[in-house]
Amino acid sequence: MKTLHTILAVGLFFSPLWREGIGNEASAQTKPMENFAIVIHGGAGTILKDSMSPALEQQYKDKLNEALKSGYNILAKGGTSMDAVVAAIKVMEDSPLFNAGKGAVFANDGTNSMDASIMDGKTIKAGAVAGVHTIRNPIEGARAVMEKSKHVMLSGDGADKFAKEQGLKIEDPKYFFDEKRWKQFHEIKKKDEIKLDHSSDTSGSINPLDVEFLGDGSIPLTTGDKFGTVGCVALDKYGNLAAGTSTGGMTNKKWDRVGDSPIIGAGTYANNKTCGVSCTGHGEYFIRNVVAYDVAALMEYKELSVEQAANEVIMKKLKAQGAEGGLIAMDAKGNITMPFNTPGMYRGYTKQDGKTWIGIYGSDK
Amino acid sequence: MKTLHTILAVGLFFSPLWREGIGNEASAQTKPMENFAIVIHGGAGTILKDSMSPALEQQYKDKLNEALKSGYNILAKGGTSMDAVVAAIKVMEDSPLFNAGKGAVFANDGTNSMDASIMDGKTIKAGAVAGVHTIRNPIEGARAVMEKSKHVMLSGDGADKFAKEQGLKIEDPKYFFDEKRWKQFHEIKKKDEIKLDHSSDTSGSINPLDVEFLGDGSIPLTTGDKFGTVGCVALDKYGNLAAGTSTGGMTNKKWDRVGDSPIIGAGTYANNKTCGVSCTGHGEYFIRNVVAYDVAALMEYKELSVEQAANEVIMKKLKAQGAEGGLIAMDAKGNITMPFNTPGMYRGYTKQDGKTWIGIYGSDK
Repeated sequence: MKTLHTILAVGLFFSPLWREGIGNEASAQTKPMENFAIVIHGGAGTILKDSMSPALEQQYKDKLNEALKSGYNILAKGGTSMDAVVAAIKVMEDSPLFNAGKGAVFANDGTNSMDASIMDGKTIKAGAVAGVHTIRNPIEGARAVMEKSKHVMLSGDGADKFAKEQGLKIEDPKYFFDEKRWKQFHEIKKKDEIKLDHSSDTSGSINPLDVEFLGDGSIPLTTGDKFGTVGCVALDKYGNLAAGTSTGGMTNKKWDRVGDSPIIGAGTYANNKTCGVSCTGHGEYFIRNVVAYDVAALMEYKELSVEQAANEVIMKKLKAQGAEGGLIAMDAKGNITMPFNTPGMYRGYTKQDGKTWIGIYGSDK
Repeated sequence: MKTLHTILAVGLFFSPLWREGIGNEASAQTKPMENFAIVIHGGAGTILKDSMSPALEQQYKDKLNEALKSGYNILAKGGTSMDAVVAAIKVMEDSPLFNAGKGAVFANDGTNSMDASIMDGKTIKAGAVAGVHTIRNPIEGARAVMEKSKHVMLSGDGADKFAKEQGLKIEDPKYFFDEKRWKQFHEIKKKDEIKLDHSSDTSGSINPLDVEFLGDGSIPLTTGDKFGTVGCVALDKYGNLAAGTSTGGMTNKKWDRVGDSPIIGAGTYANNKTCGVSCTGHGEYFIRNVVAYDVAALMEYKELSVEQAANEVIMKKLKAQGAEGGLIAMDAKGNITMPFNTPGMYRGYTKQDGKTWIGIYGSDK
C-alpha cells in the first residue's frame, strides 16, 4: 500500500495537472500568500464601559464577529479582498446597531441619507455613492459605480436610480425606519442642534444622553448617532488590498451635508503599493486632512510603517486640531493597525490562522 | 522744512501708532511679503490653434486677463488670497466662455448642475458645494460653507437652500441657459453618449466636433464641454495661500455624477506649509489619484519643489494611466507651475510687479 502511495505521489508530481495548478484556485491566479487578513470597525467615539450594558456589549461583539467571519470565509476559500470587504460591511449595514444601512440615523428632513465608498488596491479603481435613500446596501452601490459605470462618485437621486438600473436591492424608505433612531432624532431635533455622529466631548465625562438607554437592553439613545460609521480593509491570498466605508452620517444633518465616508482619499483609500484604510470620526477634519491618503503618502514618501503612518495622522495631526476619530489600516504584508483618539472604537480583525480579536474600549488590548 | 520732516519721522518711529502698525493693513497682521501672486486656469483639453478663430482666441485672452486683474488688484491693495481667488473665479463663472457658473453645460436631464470648492492655506479650512442648480456663483457657495457652516461639503438642493439662507445671489435656472450650450447638449444627447468635459483623444487629430463653430466667431460647439473647469490659486502679502475650483461638470452627465472639482484633496488643496493647487481634467482619475493633495504630500514628505511635485503627478503618474488634464500650483514663496498633459490649457498668472502672462496652447511659453 505504501508503495502504491509513493507511485501515485511521484506520478502526480510530474503530472501537468499539478504543475499548472489546476484545481487550485489560488495558484491559478498568482502565488498564494499566507498572510491574508481582514480588519473592520463599527465607529469611534465616546464609548464608555459605564454607559454600556453587558447584554448590549455582547450584541456588538457578536455582530462584529459575524462580519469578520463572513469576510474571512471568502478570503480563506480564495475569494477576493473586494468580495470580503463587501460581505463584512453588508453584515454591519443590515444591523440596526451601526449607523449605516438599516441603522442609518435620520437627517433633518426625517429621511435616512447614506454614503459609502470602496477602493480596489490592485487597480486603484474606486466607487462611491453620497446621499442615497433607497439602496439597501450602500456599499454595493459604491461597488456598482466602480465596476459598472465610468464614474467614481454618484450622488442623491441619480445614485439611487443608477443602483436600481443595476438591479441592486432597493428598499422602501420605511425599511430604514428604526423606532430607536426615530426617538433619538426627535430628542436631538428638539434641542435644535446638529449632532455630529461623534462626540465633541473628549473630557471623558459622561454626557447624560450617552447613558439614556431605552430600557430593553438595546442601543442607548445616542450610541448610534455618535459611533456608527462602519468600514473594512481586507488582504486576499493574491496580495490584493481593498477598503470600504459606509455611514448614515450625522443625526439631524441639514443641507445634504456630505462627510468623509464617500470621499476617496478622505474616508477610504487602497493601493497595493502601500495600504488599505477606512476612517471613522469627525468627517470635516478627515476631509481637510485627506486622512486615508495621507497614511498611504507617509508610507510611500517617508517610508513609515503602516502603524507609524496611521499613528502620525490620528494621534498627532488630528489630535493637535482637536479632531476626534480613528481608522483601520492594513499594509500589503498583512500588518494591521487600528489607532483612535477617542475613548473607544468598535473594532476587530481575523488573521490567516482564523484567530479573531475584537475590542470596544481603549483599554481593550 | 527738511528739519521738520526729520522731526516728524523720528517722532513717528517712536510713536506707538507706528510700532503697532496702525493704519498699515499689512503690518497689522504680519510682515508683508513682496512676492504675492495669482495664477488661474480655464480648463485643459484638446485645444488646438487650427480649431480656434483669432476672434475667439482674443475673447479667451481678454477674459483670463480680466480675471487675473480682478484678483491682482485685491492682493496689491493688501487684500487676502481668499478674496482674490473668489474674485478671479467669479469673473470666469460669469462668462459663457467657461464651463462654470453662467457657462455651465447641461446634464442629461437638461439642467445645469455645478460643483465648486475652496480651501484656505492658513487655517486648512475648506468648503464645497456639489450638484447645485441655482447659486449664481458656486465659488461663493463653497466659501459660505467654509465660513458660515460647520461643514466642508454640502450637496444638491440642500446646498442651494443653504446658499439662499446665507443671502447669496440665487438665479432662476434660465439664467444658466445658454443657446450654444443647449445646441451642444442636444448634439451630444443625440449621440446618446456621456461626453467627458475633456477629450479622450490624445492623438492630436482633430475631432470634427472640435471645429464645428456656430458661425458667429464664438464658442465652438464642444470647446465648453471639453475644456471648461476654472480655478485659481493666490498668495497674499501676508504669506497666505488660497485655492479654488468651479465647474459645470460633463455635458449630458447622468446619475448626479460628482467629479473632482468639489473634492478637497482631489480637485483643490491649499496649505501654507506646502502649496495651493487647482486641477482640471478627467475627474475620475483625479479623484483616484488624490491629485491636489498628492502634489502637497510630495513637497512635504519628499522635499520636491512645487514644479517637480506637480510634474511628477501630471506628467508621470497620470500620463502613465492615460489620464488627461492639468493643474496650477503655487508654493508659499510664490513659485508657480502649470503642467498639463493635453494639447492646451487656458492659463495665466500675474506676479507682484503686475506683469501678466497668458497662454492657451502647449507651444505658448
